[in-house]
Amino acid sequence: MRTSIATVSLSGSLTEKLTAASRAGFDGVEIFENDLLTGPLAPEEIRARCADLGLSVDLYQPMRDIEAVPEAEFARNLRRARHKFELMTRLGADTVLVCSSVSPLAEDDDDLAAEQLSRLAGLAREFGVRVAYEALAWGRHVSTYDHAWRIVEAAGHPALGTCLDSFHILSRGCDPQGIEDIPGEKIFFLQLADAPRIAMDVLQWSRHHRCFPGQGGFDVAGLVRHVLRTGYDGPLSLEVFNDVFRQAEAGPTAVDAHRSLLLLQEAVGAVELPAPVVPTGVAFAELVTPDAEPVTAVLDALGFNRAARHRGKPVDLWQRGEARILVNTGPAARRDGARLAAIGLESPDPAGAARRAEVLLAPVLPRRRAPEDTPLDAVAAPDGTELFFCATGRPELPDWRADFPDVTGQEPAANTTGKAIEETARDATRIDHLSLTQPWHQFDEAALFHRAVLGLRPQESVDVADPYGLLRSRAVSDDDGRVRIALTVGAAPTDDTAHAQHIALATDDVVTAARRFLAAGGLLLPVPVNYYDDLAARYEFAEGEWETYRELGILYDRDAGGAFRHCYTRTIGRVFFELVQRDPGYRGYGAPNAPVRLAAQHAGRPPR
Amino acid sequence: MRTSIATVSLSGSLTEKLTAASRAGFDGVEIFENDLLTGPLAPEEIRARCADLGLSVDLYQPMRDIEAVPEAEFARNLRRARHKFELMTRLGADTVLVCSSVSPLAEDDDDLAAEQLSRLAGLAREFGVRVAYEALAWGRHVSTYDHAWRIVEAAGHPALGTCLDSFHILSRGCDPQGIEDIPGEKIFFLQLADAPRIAMDVLQWSRHHRCFPGQGGFDVAGLVRHVLRTGYDGPLSLEVFNDVFRQAEAGPTAVDAHRSLLLLQEAVGAVELPAPVVPTGVAFAELVTPDAEPVTAVLDALGFNRAARHRGKPVDLWQRGEARILVNTGPAARRDGARLAAIGLESPDPAGAARRAEVLLAPVLPRRRAPEDTPLDAVAAPDGTELFFCATGRPELPDWRADFPDVTGQEPAANTTGKAIEETARDATRIDHLSLTQPWHQFDEAALFHRAVLGLRPQESVDVADPYGLLRSRAVSDDDGRVRIALTVGAAPTDDTAHAQHIALATDDVVTAARRFLAAGGLLLPVPVNYYDDLAARYEFAEGEWETYRELGILYDRDAGGAFRHCYTRTIGRVFFELVQRDPGYRGYGAPNAPVRLAAQHAGRPPR
Repeated sequence: MRTSIATVSLSGSLTEKLTAASRAGFDGVEIFENDLLTGPLAPEEIRARCADLGLSVDLYQPMRDIEAVPEAEFARNLRRARHKFELMTRLGADTVLVCSSVSPLAEDDDDLAAEQLSRLAGLAREFGVRVAYEALAWGRHVSTYDHAWRIVEAAGHPALGTCLDSFHILSRGCDPQGIEDIPGEKIFFLQLADAPRIAMDVLQWSRHHRCFPGQGGFDVAGLVRHVLRTGYDGPLSLEVFNDVFRQAEAGPTAVDAHRSLLLLQEAVGAVELPAPVVPTGVAFAELVTPDAEPVTAVLDALGFNRAARHRGKPVDLWQRGEARILVNTGPAARRDGARLAAIGLESPDPAGAARRAEVLLAPVLPRRRAPEDTPLDAVAAPDGTELFFCATGRPELPDWRADFPDVTGQEPAANTTGKAIEETARDATRIDHLSLTQPWHQFDEAALFHRAVLGLRPQESVDVADPYGLLRSRAVSDDDGRVRIALTVGAAPTDDTAHAQHIALATDDVVTAARRFLAAGGLLLPVPVNYYDDLAARYEFAEGEWETYRELGILYDRDAGGAFRHCYTRTIGRVFFELVQRDPGYRGYGAPNAPVRLAAQHAGRPPR
Repeated sequence: MRTSIATVSLSGSLTEKLTAASRAGFDGVEIFENDLLTGPLAPEEIRARCADLGLSVDLYQPMRDIEAVPEAEFARNLRRARHKFELMTRLGADTVLVCSSVSPLAEDDDDLAAEQLSRLAGLAREFGVRVAYEALAWGRHVSTYDHAWRIVEAAGHPALGTCLDSFHILSRGCDPQGIEDIPGEKIFFLQLADAPRIAMDVLQWSRHHRCFPGQGGFDVAGLVRHVLRTGYDGPLSLEVFNDVFRQAEAGPTAVDAHRSLLLLQEAVGAVELPAPVVPTGVAFAELVTPDAEPVTAVLDALGFNRAARHRGKPVDLWQRGEARILVNTGPAARRDGARLAAIGLESPDPAGAARRAEVLLAPVLPRRRAPEDTPLDAVAAPDGTELFFCATGRPELPDWRADFPDVTGQEPAANTTGKAIEETARDATRIDHLSLTQPWHQFDEAALFHRAVLGLRPQESVDVADPYGLLRSRAVSDDDGRVRIALTVGAAPTDDTAHAQHIALATDDVVTAARRFLAAGGLLLPVPVNYYDDLAARYEFAEGEWETYRELGILYDRDAGGAFRHCYTRTIGRVFFELVQRDPGYRGYGAPNAPVRLAAQHAGRPPR
């Protein structure tokens, strides 16, 4: 199907918007009137620019407060409409959106509305223009799609049809089944938007909080199925008013938008994409750092062995049990210290995973960076994290560890501090979850990306109180909890330091792991005594248990499925480690304790 | 009355919050439990810190999900409560807030609630603690203040009273008249918050959008009057959950908060402040710039005369009609160019105006900067703009122009380009309005400051679509429109360049003024032709009128009271000028045209 996007959905000048829409793969655009009025290009120039970019002008919008008004007012409206139809001719747009009136002059008179819309359509036809009449959810007298359609049907003019908008329909809780009663050829246009399920005034909800299909709580795909059954063959067009997208770079937003339409088409069976390949584990996490020492000191204290070095690059493989961490001191390192730059995802079908990612507009990374490298499928996530689709120890596929010759087929090298391998093996450490800081403007995008590209399931977004603002965090995971990623975002675009990325290591016994870490010279984040007083008020513990947690700085949470015990290392650069002991039924990430961690992390920074 | 603030209302660590509350003049604080739990200070240390700062600990809060639960659960709750009462003893807090339960375990049983709250109060009394029971607006079974009071009354325990919260009462539209039925001594605490009138889920509204009294749409003063009639003599305490205040510096927020309580006390007759002195005009606007030339070139083209120079400072007075602009090249100049740094407000009683401002916590500026200067009363606004309360040509008061000896009692000097004075006098120019860019975190504060300190009336806040985000703008003015200030704020804390301050000059004939400006070599902001095509579609003009606007770049707006015609100069540094011709009945500021201006300003910047 053809895809389109309203220019109001993107940030910037009209030409920035058009460029972004074209680059992201859209076939057409809706030109939002204000984007035309405020820009320097004449309509003919916009038309030419669109043609250059391979974009059709699918809609000009919106025309407001036209119908069911006293005759003198309608005459003024027709005069205004004539100007707009002339403009559309110059612009090369053949369909105009007319929203149901919100004017205090409008009368509750369907016959009058039909009669005036018919006259409007008659004028439009003289210019080769079609009128698509849409019910605004807050229209004064016409606020439902079936009502708008009854008026269009009564008008019976060939140049008058209806425009359906998923927000206006679903925000009011209307049953979209009735769409199938409308002949497809009378649906002149289809605008799509999703929105989070929040109870608020529908006008404010619409103007500030719309999002792309799949990012909110509406069944947009269900609505589209009804529309397709009518025989509608126009574009799927996104019209999203969103305060954040208005500020974000147009390029990434347009890519995100087009991805959402690809997924929507997949959901309704209109297109077949390579099937999702859900990762089955975390093969490795890669830290990039200008100075290996602070990172490796912590890894060493955590009981990791330096098992191997990459044969061509300054990358060491550190391992403990199933947890593998690459420490990269190559040119990508930045002076603000260590950061989590890449994740290896254990994939049942690495090539298939990469194919789906590519079709879904993820930037594909080179398979080899040097001629002798093992080929690896990799893409970039919206936050810039490199995602490698890998196999570990599966003979039918190239093993990513082949580039680390000390490892494959050999015993891992001895730990630098001489700890025996068997000690490491006793505690089957693996990566429980990874926490990635998202760019403030791309938080909605991040969840959709991880769901769409990786097949992970997003959980609810939670607010977390940092001393300097509310952060948000949203986890994505597979159904078995083998891959868990917490996506977090700061309180404001400027807030990139309040929180850091982290690697959480699963352990069967966090007390022992913490004691070993401390004995090896590691430093844990100090936790206030007041926290433990509260813990004692809330829970009853076995003899000595609470005292141990307080002594070591272990935090505790509990849900219906079990308990979660965890502690944190000090932050190195922009990354820290967490040790977690998760009861099998516990579903969360210790979010109730996050304010304690954040306050302690702030307190541990140099005074401002 | 005593004033207090909940620590959750302020940003930062607990000690930052306490310091800010003390500095702003609060008498006490509510300690929000999470602020205690996440910090390193023991309760005794917090108590000592508060004592050092002159703050009492008026409330510990909140205790949740206590009442009307099965006995086994209540036993656990009592155990938890005992821990908290012990903690409160250490903290020196004698009142605890208990919110009505939201637990699924809670039963709809007032008798059980009363019985359990009575037992809780009995335990509390052993520790010298009082329990203040409050109805949350979203409480499971108890959600109104009168319901909570009936339960407290039924319990009949001397250590059990009620807590009233203006948000919980007014957000539900409850009539606060019934408060007078509660004996004052049983109102153990009074929490105050305002909120904007937005239709949304009350829990989300409460958690993210509360604001200080006078910043929202609730009649908080009306509620307080009812409370005072009961004989309540506890503190007025602010409890505000607000996403922006969580990010803002604690110091200014606390000042803003305390100012709101001073105004509230004035409104209910609990305190007498110096009366507002509403300014009667704009005496001058002062631009600070590192380089006078670009500014004076524009002033010259606008027909201003350089009328005088300050006798001790590098400040020139430029004048045209009643419009006076000071150009200051002194040490406050910054390298990013000209900015609007000060405003002279014509004041009927400059000393009285300054007294009110000082009582309302505005920083008072030195009356004289040099021994020979005329004494001037001045304060700083929240955005740093210096506000001078002045007299111009009133014999009973010192004239600020006395420091500009070329002016007082003499003819103004000739214009630098030799234009005759009489030509200038023909068009009685004055300052129509000033537009000031506000810090993103202080937008609510700014409106309250201008209302409280200057007695100006805030209008509705409007959203303005900039190409890179939605800006907000809110005008304040006196009733006669002699002083008009538009307070504007960017889309995000990072957005400080999308919009600039400006000075709008009123003219009787904008067409002539624009032509003169252009003839004198001035440059106006170019306005797209598309804008004029739309204007022609919307309005009918007299012969040649529309063509003139298009030729010159004059924008047009109309409301029920009349028309508004305006045009803009290019931006110099961070400031630009506007020429406006306002019909007497027109109330606005041309907001519908602001997106056109903003897009043109972006387009005129160097390519990024």
